[in-house]
Amino acid sequence: MPEISTRTPAAEAVRDAKRLLRLARVGALATLDREYGSPLATLVGVAADWDGSPLLLLSQLSRHTQNLGGSGVASLLLTAEPGRGDPLNHPRLTVNGPVLPHADASSRERYIRRNPKAKLYVGFGDFAVYRMRIDAIHFNGGFGRADAILPSELLSPPGDIHEIVEGSASLCAEIDALGDERLAALANRSTDNRRFWRAVDIDVEGFDLSAGAAVARVDFSAPAFDRATWRLRLAETLALAEARTVNDS
Amino acid sequence: MPEISTRTPAAEAVRDAKRLLRLARVGALATLDREYGSPLATLVGVAADWDGSPLLLLSQLSRHTQNLGGSGVASLLLTAEPGRGDPLNHPRLTVNGPVLPHADASSRERYIRRNPKAKLYVGFGDFAVYRMRIDAIHFNGGFGRADAILPSELLSPPGDIHEIVEGSASLCAEIDALGDERLAALANRSTDNRRFWRAVDIDVEGFDLSAGAAVARVDFSAPAFDRATWRLRLAETLALAEARTVNDS
Repeated sequence: MPEISTRTPAAEAVRDAKRLLRLARVGALATLDREYGSPLATLVGVAADWDGSPLLLLSQLSRHTQNLGGSGVASLLLTAEPGRGDPLNHPRLTVNGPVLPHADASSRERYIRRNPKAKLYVGFGDFAVYRMRIDAIHFNGGFGRADAILPSELLSPPGDIHEIVEGSASLCAEIDALGDERLAALANRSTDNRRFWRAVDIDVEGFDLSAGAAVARVDFSAPAFDRATWRLRLAETLALAEARTVNDS
Repeated sequence: MPEISTRTPAAEAVRDAKRLLRLARVGALATLDREYGSPLATLVGVAADWDGSPLLLLSQLSRHTQNLGGSGVASLLLTAEPGRGDPLNHPRLTVNGPVLPHADASSRERYIRRNPKAKLYVGFGDFAVYRMRIDAIHFNGGFGRADAILPSELLSPPGDIHEIVEGSASLCAEIDALGDERLAALANRSTDNRRFWRAVDIDVEGFDLSAGAAVARVDFSAPAFDRATWRLRLAETLALAEARTVNDS
């Protein structure tokens, strides 16, 4: 009998899980040893595809890639930058599903925008972009905060994204042109720390900023599937961020 | 026919791998789903036992603990604090082997010294300390630096450590009493950043320091199995660190 879920995950849990998925540059991949079936935990570079699905740049020479074999069965742990206090009280996300080769030019570009240093080796013959199809999720928000989240809740809603894909470079440039103060307000960080935020990438639910090793996620109130709506969401989000900044000061 | 290894791993690889093993506070654990046999990657708190073997504080309620089952088969990925540049060009260590319950009071104390916040829940009925017996090692020092390391090379040499175990609290106090400047020299960091180093724990091959979220490993030139030799090694190491500081300035 199929399980019928009626629970609603806390909005905070979904938001935290989406942020981990969107902002990660690395993850811990668990695969099964091809020969012995024992587990293997290794570090991999990751990015988020348009809908949030993990993109991995893997070398055919790596043991984890060989372990994926035909089925691609794997598990991926994503954590945030280490913060203060007990690391076990910080949110982390495990996503499970098959990791399969994904020859899509715009996904490869997303990987490079997230991991610019990968430009040095992304073209090597043994490297290829893979994508995980998320089948199951384990979200742990910290002590006593293990929420059940469905893949449809974690990923962006489906829709025609071609206008956003084609406009992503110009929309990123528009974000960068907002200037340091407005970008710091969007990142919800003080400008005092002299961090200069820049757009990393966009999607239908918002966009990601980085400043050196720091990263920030900006969430829209609702998704946008065309450029006009996307610009409207950006303007709304900026107005809210600036109002918050004024109230805080 | 047993494989006879004649290769010598680079001294640098062994040193980097030992540091990752000694300084980690968390790791990514790969286990096998008890029901389906699929891999699962989760975050766990870790410390290093006297010889370096990973200690894990696990809750019986956690899926990864249930996955360990009777055999305890698992893989553990340890990374350093994220640094600058490509995270895939930084050293990381994967250790494989059975993770089994380990009811040893001094190991539990080591876990708490590494993860002081765990004092809040280490006494809960569902928590217990586990220990991995390292059977296999995958060390990746960055691009082109995958060295084969044997468990006997990664762990501290065997020997009677009772004098070091019993003297550890007083030896830690002696380290702390060296003062901020000498501790910064031992940590091989500038004093400019106003970090106040303190001893976390000791072992026969050296000791670990922390200053807030920062950690540093101090390696002896040779192991010490009694307190007199340990103090001698500390004095030698301090003299070398201070000479290095003078040369740098």
